[in-house]
Amino acid sequence: MPKIVQCVPNFSEGRNQDKINKIVEPFKGQDGFKLVSVEPDADYNRTVVTLLGDPNKIIEALIPFVGKVLEEIDMNVQKGEHPRMGAVDVIPFIPIEGVTMDECVKYAEEIGENINQSFDIPIFLYAEAARQKRRIKLPTIRKGEFEGMKEKIKEEKWTPDFGENKIHPTFGVIGIGARNPLIAFNIDLDTAENKIASSIAKIIRGSSGGFGYIQAGPAFLEKRNHMQVTMNILDYKKNAIYRIVETVRMEAKRYQVNVTSCEVVGLIPKDAIVRSLQYYYASEGKAFPEMSLEDIAEDAKNILNFRDFDVFKIIEANM
Amino acid sequence: MPKIVQCVPNFSEGRNQDKINKIVEPFKGQDGFKLVSVEPDADYNRTVVTLLGDPNKIIEALIPFVGKVLEEIDMNVQKGEHPRMGAVDVIPFIPIEGVTMDECVKYAEEIGENINQSFDIPIFLYAEAARQKRRIKLPTIRKGEFEGMKEKIKEEKWTPDFGENKIHPTFGVIGIGARNPLIAFNIDLDTAENKIASSIAKIIRGSSGGFGYIQAGPAFLEKRNHMQVTMNILDYKKNAIYRIVETVRMEAKRYQVNVTSCEVVGLIPKDAIVRSLQYYYASEGKAFPEMSLEDIAEDAKNILNFRDFDVFKIIEANM
Repeated sequence: MPKIVQCVPNFSEGRNQDKINKIVEPFKGQDGFKLVSVEPDADYNRTVVTLLGDPNKIIEALIPFVGKVLEEIDMNVQKGEHPRMGAVDVIPFIPIEGVTMDECVKYAEEIGENINQSFDIPIFLYAEAARQKRRIKLPTIRKGEFEGMKEKIKEEKWTPDFGENKIHPTFGVIGIGARNPLIAFNIDLDTAENKIASSIAKIIRGSSGGFGYIQAGPAFLEKRNHMQVTMNILDYKKNAIYRIVETVRMEAKRYQVNVTSCEVVGLIPKDAIVRSLQYYYASEGKAFPEMSLEDIAEDAKNILNFRDFDVFKIIEANM
Repeated sequence: MPKIVQCVPNFSEGRNQDKINKIVEPFKGQDGFKLVSVEPDADYNRTVVTLLGDPNKIIEALIPFVGKVLEEIDMNVQKGEHPRMGAVDVIPFIPIEGVTMDECVKYAEEIGENINQSFDIPIFLYAEAARQKRRIKLPTIRKGEFEGMKEKIKEEKWTPDFGENKIHPTFGVIGIGARNPLIAFNIDLDTAENKIASSIAKIIRGSSGGFGYIQAGPAFLEKRNHMQVTMNILDYKKNAIYRIVETVRMEAKRYQVNVTSCEVVGLIPKDAIVRSLQYYYASEGKAFPEMSLEDIAEDAKNILNFRDFDVFKIIEANM
């Protein structure tokens, strides 16, 4: 069985299409892996790239990719809604098929060392690749962001896993990790009030007593002129999508605010959609039918209100 | 300011009214504290007593109370839906007014030592009164229940805080603790299927990824012939009642099951009801009115569907 990993590098440019094109160039038309998607977000000023395929081929392409980012992005002038600590903010490896988590940790270590040696950018290993307990959670490492990292990295406990106690002056630092699949998921609200999205995010996220596997915060989409609750669903089997959406809908009701649509950033496992569709079918007393991936994608749009969605956002459609 | 604690002893008899009357006799007509309620449950075969007032007076009355229980209950023949490790299962002290948590810990220690010396019943200190980390959570101590405790107590790590490594042969052991107010809350479902209540309980409880401050399980009410999701709400400010009820309602929907009513065991702070009423008023776009305690109790019955409820279930109505 061929080894398949998902790799989801994020970089801190989501507005200038010209720069974005240059940056993702090294991922295009390569043998051994697929460039599944490039998702720029102007408000977040960040682009999420999704790669799927042979881990060794992906690792090879990551070096010229970081080189391009280094040419195109200067973090001293970059601004956006999404928290970030580097021009490439994170590079996570996710085991999909024929590959273990331990192997993904090794890929993270290998590319981390390579990037540091090639470009003198400090690397923090996170999630399953973390070598210290306080580095498991990305938000803990990223706290202070690019601007705060200049001082933070001088502390002994924030010595990078690869590199010196000094950020790269224009690039910052990168978090490189291995982790289980998570779903980057946003719920759109028809309000522009930050307070409402903040309060709902606080209610659903595990760190303040909400659902155990949810990390969430508010974000304003300037172009669309509304707030969203932006989140990571760390375990969709324990915290199903429908449950989170229905809870957000319930909480929004007290403000006379509605959930208008939802958004998946990057890929989503088929099983995560199916589990939520099953809820809505069962709630209406309907049997759950046999469905093709295309049918599932259609239902995701119509029943779960996923916007800007198509079948290729489902992991299995790219394999 | 007079010191006011709430003390909620539970004993393992909920069917024989004659025995229950004899057992609670020492709490009746006493100076310095009020016997707020005696709530027997035949299915659980357990009675919850709520006392409110001067901690020293309550401690005095607890000794003859335990004496009565020792006369009336033999755990070798007791059976019921509620897990239990002793004829008196737990005695928690809760600070209400003019008293600190540290003082409540001291009351727990004092009565624990007294009961052990008077009746040779082993005592485990739990929650804020716990002297070991593994004794903080009551379910960890209680695991194995009365029947399993015979062997468990012989292990060195389960040496009681007061007493020998040997249960009382007819009484078992008691958990005595100090804790913040919790709400013992049950949500009635119009189904008799354990699987449905179990699956919903698992979804909402913190230990399996649900809401952080909820402990929950299924229970069957034989007399009423339906299941309920029975729970402790450990922090109603973080996990509001309305949110739990609405989530249970949402999850029940997939089974075509309804939430028919809710039940508060023991007392509930006024603030916990008000916070949930505010949600429903706001959801309907109505301003929240000035309300007396009686009005709040009425709304709790009509809007929150609390059954068997009256104003004296609200802590503040007893002070």
